Amino acid sequence: MMKISQEKLATFCGIISAIVPECRLTIAPEGWNTQAVDTANVAMVSANLPKSLFEEYNEGEDKVEVGMDLQKWKNMLTVMNDPKSIIEIEQQKSAGKIRITDGRYTYLHTPLDANTVRKRPTMPLLTLPAAVKIEAKEIQEAIKALSVIGDKARFTCSIKGGLALDADGDTDHLNKVLTALDGSKFPDEAVSSLFSLDYLRDMTKAMKESGTITVSSGHNHPVRFDFEPLEGFECSYLVAPRIEQEGD
Amino acid sequence: MMKISQEKLATFCGIISAIVPECRLTIAPEGWNTQAVDTANVAMVSANLPKSLFEEYNEGEDKVEVGMDLQKWKNMLTVMNDPKSIIEIEQQKSAGKIRITDGRYTYLHTPLDANTVRKRPTMPLLTLPAAVKIEAKEIQEAIKALSVIGDKARFTCSIKGGLALDADGDTDHLNKVLTALDGSKFPDEAVSSLFSLDYLRDMTKAMKESGTITVSSGHNHPVRFDFEPLEGFECSYLVAPRIEQEGD
Amino acid sequence: MMKISQEKLATFCGIISAIVPECRLTIAPEGWNTQAVDTANVAMVSANLPKSLFEEYNEGEDKVEVGMDLQKWKNMLTVMNDPKSIIEIEQQKSAGKIRITDGRYTYLHTPLDANTVRKRPTMPLLTLPAAVKIEAKEIQEAIKALSVIGDKARFTCSIKGGLALDADGDTDHLNKVLTALDGSKFPDEAVSSLFSLDYLRDMTKAMKESGTITVSSGHNHPVRFDFEPLEGFECSYLVAPRIEQEGD
Repeated sequence: MMKISQEKLATFCGIISAIVPECRLTIAPEGWNTQAVDTANVAMVSANLPKSLFEEYNEGEDKVEVGMDLQKWKNMLTVMNDPKSIIEIEQQKSAGKIRITDGRYTYLHTPLDANTVRKRPTMPLLTLPAAVKIEAKEIQEAIKALSVIGDKARFTCSIKGGLALDADGDTDHLNKVLTALDGSKFPDEAVSSLFSLDYLRDMTKAMKESGTITVSSGHNHPVRFDFEPLEGFECSYLVAPRIEQEGD
Repeated sequence: MMKISQEKLATFCGIISAIVPECRLTIAPEGWNTQAVDTANVAMVSANLPKSLFEEYNEGEDKVEVGMDLQKWKNMLTVMNDPKSIIEIEQQKSAGKIRITDGRYTYLHTPLDANTVRKRPTMPLLTLPAAVKIEAKEIQEAIKALSVIGDKARFTCSIKGGLALDADGDTDHLNKVLTALDGSKFPDEAVSSLFSLDYLRDMTKAMKESGTITVSSGHNHPVRFDFEPLEGFECSYLVAPRIEQEGD
Repeated sequence: MMKISQEKLATFCGIISAIVPECRLTIAPEGWNTQAVDTANVAMVSANLPKSLFEEYNEGEDKVEVGMDLQKWKNMLTVMNDPKSIIEIEQQKSAGKIRITDGRYTYLHTPLDANTVRKRPTMPLLTLPAAVKIEAKEIQEAIKALSVIGDKARFTCSIKGGLALDADGDTDHLNKVLTALDGSKFPDEAVSSLFSLDYLRDMTKAMKESGTITVSSGHNHPVRFDFEPLEGFECSYLVAPRIEQEGD
C-alpha cells in the first residue's frame, strides 16, 4: 500500500503524459520509475519518483510492472481533485486491479497489461558539448512565444553566452536569448540544432514549475532537459532534432 | 404588474430549463407555477414560486397560462444581468405581450401560445422507501465526478447508512458514498436503481445552491429530488430509471 | 527609431483591426496615421497616433508608407505581452524590414508591400444633424445586449433627449435609451437609421476604454463615432446604414 499527495501524483502523471498516452510503470522497492518514447520516436521521457516522496510506501521486495493508461489516471485525478489530499493506492494483485481512494471517492482501476504497452526505450548516452542552466519558467514562456510565429525552433549555443532560440514565420523572425545561470557549460565552438515546437511546448509546460533545469545540446543532435520537479524526483526529456531538408 | 429580483427570476428559469426548453407557466393569484416533462419522458420538473418572493405582485383573481420559451427568458436575463436589479413584468393582455424592464433595458416579449406547448404532466404519486437528506453541493460534485468515468450512475440506499453512487467505465469503477443528514429515512432492505448521468448533471447543477435536498429512491424506481432553492419556492425533479438490458 | 509602450501600440492596432486585417500605415514626421475601409465597403476607420504618445520618435522628414498586416502585429504583441514594456521599432530601409524589440524578444518583421494593400479611402464629409455624447462603456454594453436579441440595431435620435437603440428578434423587441451627456447636439426632427450589429460590436469593443465618445447620426445616413482612446490620439469609425427592403 502506498500513500502520496494528489499534487505529487499529478506532477508525475503530467510529466509522462506530455510525451506518451501510456507507459510501462515499474513499482519497485525504491519507488516508481518509467521510461517511454513517443510513437514517432522523436521524444523520450525518463522519470524516477523516489519512495521518499510518498507519505507511506509499504511495498514488498519485488518489482511489479503495470501498464499505465495516463488518461485514466488523469481522469481519476480530476475526480480526486484536491491537491492537498492524500491518495491511497493499493495493488489487488489477485484481482489484477488497483484500488485508489482519497477518502471521499474510491476508484477501482484495471491497469493495462504491460505486455500490450510499447517497451521501454534505452535512453541513449549522449555526450553533448553544451549544458546550459536555465529558469524553467523562462524557457516555457519563450517556447510559447516562438509558437506564435512558427512551428520549429533553432537552439544555438555559442562559445560564451546564453542559449539563443530562433523561430521563422513565413516572412518574420523571432529571437530570444535565454539567460544562462551559474554552472552552465558552453561548447568550444557554436552548436545549433532545429526542433519541432509541438514537442517542446508540451514538455516545457510540464517542466515549468521545476525551477532551474539543464538544457544539454549539440550540433544537429538531440536536446536533453534534466529537471527535478520535486526534491529527489529526477526526470529527463530527450527530443530528436529535425533533419533539415532543402525547402525547410 | 409584478416585480422580482433578477437573481430570483434567473433561479426560477434555470430550474425549469435544466429539463425542458419550454413550458406552460401559470400566473396565479398565489404566484407562479409549472410542471413539465422532457421530450423523452425521462425527467419531470415541478416548480412553485410563491407570491412572497416577489417585491410586488399585483395580479387579478384570474389564473393566466402562458407558453414560456425558456431560451428567450434566459436571453433577456443575459441583457438584464445585474442580480440585484428589480425586474418589472407587466402583462399587456390586449396585445398578447409581456413588457419586461429593469429600468435600463425594456424588453417587449411575445409569449408562446400555451396550446402549442406540451401539456403539463401529472407528477406520479410514488411511495419510495428511501428518503435521504443530502447537501446539494455534495451530490452535484459527485455527479460531475461520476460523469468523468461513465454515463450512468447507480444509486444504492442500504438499510442504515448513506446513499452510494457508482459508475462504471470500460475497465474502471468509481464509488462515492454521500453523507446522509439528520431526518433521512432508510429502507427496510437495500434498494438500487440506475440513471443516465446526462439528466442528473443538469439537475444537480441547477439545484446546487439549494442547501439540503431530499433524494427519494426505490428499487428500479424513479428518483425524486425535493428542494427549495429560495425560501418557500418548492421544487421537485423526477427521473425515470434506466431499464437494464443484457449488455448494459 | 521609435519607442512606444506596448499598451499604446496594442490600442492602435486594436482600433484598426476591428475593421480591416491590413492597412496602409503612414509613418510621418508628426506621427502614425492610417485610413481604411473594409472589403464590404460598410465600415471605415481613421486613426492618427501623434508623435507625442511615443517615448522617442526619431524619424526623418520623409513620410514612409508601409503595408501593415494587423495579425502579424498582434502576434508580435502576444509575444511582447507586458503592457508596461517599451517597444523599440526601427525601420531597416535597405533590407525592407522593421526590427522590433522589447528588450526580451527581438522580432524581425517584413511589412507588406503597401501597393498590394487596398488604397486609403477618402472619409466622406458628412453633415449629420445629431451629435450625441455618450459613455463608451455604456454603448458597448448596449450593443452587446442588443446582439443577444437580433442582428441589426436602429439608432433613433429625437428632438430633445437621448439616443435610443432598438433591436428586433423574431417575436421580441429590446429597447435601450443611452444617456446623452453635456454638449450633445440634437436634430430639428427625429432621425433614425438601421445598422448591422456585427460591425458595431467590434467597434464598440475597440472603443470601450475611450471615455466619452461622440455619436453623429442622421436619417438613413451613416453613423460616425469620434473618439480619443489616448490623449491626442484622434480616431473615427464610420458605418454605412442598412438599406431597408421589404421583408427586413
